[in-house]
Amino acid sequence: MVVKVYGPVYSAATRRVLACLIEKGVDFEIKPINIISGEQHSPDYLKLQPFGFVPVIQDGDLTLFESRAILRYYAEKYASQGAELLGKNLEERAIVEQWLEVEGHNYNLPCYTLVVQILYHPKLGLALDHKAIEEAEEKLGKVLDIYEERLSKSKYLAGDFYSLADLSHLSFTNYLVNNAGKDYMIKNRKHVNAWWEDISNRPAWKKVLELGTDGLF
Amino acid sequence: MVVKVYGPVYSAATRRVLACLIEKGVDFEIKPINIISGEQHSPDYLKLQPFGFVPVIQDGDLTLFESRAILRYYAEKYASQGAELLGKNLEERAIVEQWLEVEGHNYNLPCYTLVVQILYHPKLGLALDHKAIEEAEEKLGKVLDIYEERLSKSKYLAGDFYSLADLSHLSFTNYLVNNAGKDYMIKNRKHVNAWWEDISNRPAWKKVLELGTDGLF
Repeated sequence: MVVKVYGPVYSAATRRVLACLIEKGVDFEIKPINIISGEQHSPDYLKLQPFGFVPVIQDGDLTLFESRAILRYYAEKYASQGAELLGKNLEERAIVEQWLEVEGHNYNLPCYTLVVQILYHPKLGLALDHKAIEEAEEKLGKVLDIYEERLSKSKYLAGDFYSLADLSHLSFTNYLVNNAGKDYMIKNRKHVNAWWEDISNRPAWKKVLELGTDGLF
Repeated sequence: MVVKVYGPVYSAATRRVLACLIEKGVDFEIKPINIISGEQHSPDYLKLQPFGFVPVIQDGDLTLFESRAILRYYAEKYASQGAELLGKNLEERAIVEQWLEVEGHNYNLPCYTLVVQILYHPKLGLALDHKAIEEAEEKLGKVLDIYEERLSKSKYLAGDFYSLADLSHLSFTNYLVNNAGKDYMIKNRKHVNAWWEDISNRPAWKKVLELGTDGLF
């Protein structure tokens, strides 16, 4: 069964899902959604995702949205196929879930602000909100200081094993480091940098990047 | 093994965890944290939760934070004890996870703004930000319109079974309806109101409310 993934290949949330599918060796087909022209608000798309966000997947009878819910589904469905992304037992999974929530609630928002402001606003002809950029950088810096401490004690966020908690950080951190000129936020933190070098060199993530950005960057 | 729950009994995130523990019949002991005086930023607390948020649980050797990660852990650990909160199979769990993510990303933030502005600001002697209140209400209204449509098709968010997706909404919706004067947002939507009447009358939730609010409201 080929999984249909609706979303632009450059969206951070879509890339998060693709990284997981590739880690698990699940075949997929991308159904591009043009979020610049507003296709995510079209009646057809809203039938799949009533909030108008990307991505959505269709897998046989299952239609599923919210990228981290999709990650969990495939990580559990194919637990023994490809990289193990949820740990080996309930307690390890609990710690994976903890850091996946931290990514979703503490890391994602300031990253989103920085990437949208610095990368998208100029392309859309919108002014930069320098105060928002400054506040987001300060907030993200505090989160990264905690990551630095955590990653001085374990190789990955949830322990000494790669998991969804790490994978979920790839998309926005990639834009932050490689496109938004904020690489120093990662590189100036020794353990965060070693972690980033490790996770961003995984073959599955490199395959996501090979899918390109629809010419956007 | 008695689970230690660090947090004030009135915090929405702490109550979310307590509702789950009570549904599952898990014994717990509350270790109050005074977030008004800033105890969540004390060195001892930061050792348990480096971001300075409540709650944290300790269960034998396991220390775990992020309320929704704690929910998942206990719902899975005690899957066959008390109410089944993650569905009966992987596909049902996927839909539970989808709506739990919707709660965390779309519902929680405007609710948080309304509750903090309307309930906490006057108690802390802070001015109300009427623009923020108005924007949060508009945003939450749009989310509730989608819930209304969803709940016209299934009794609960993830299907015809109560789950973590519903449970996770209890804390903030309770403050919204019973303390912040925003009950019309729920009551004016027929299916949302029926859902609220159902979930807020569960014995486990009533037991959470019986723990009181430390005299805060």
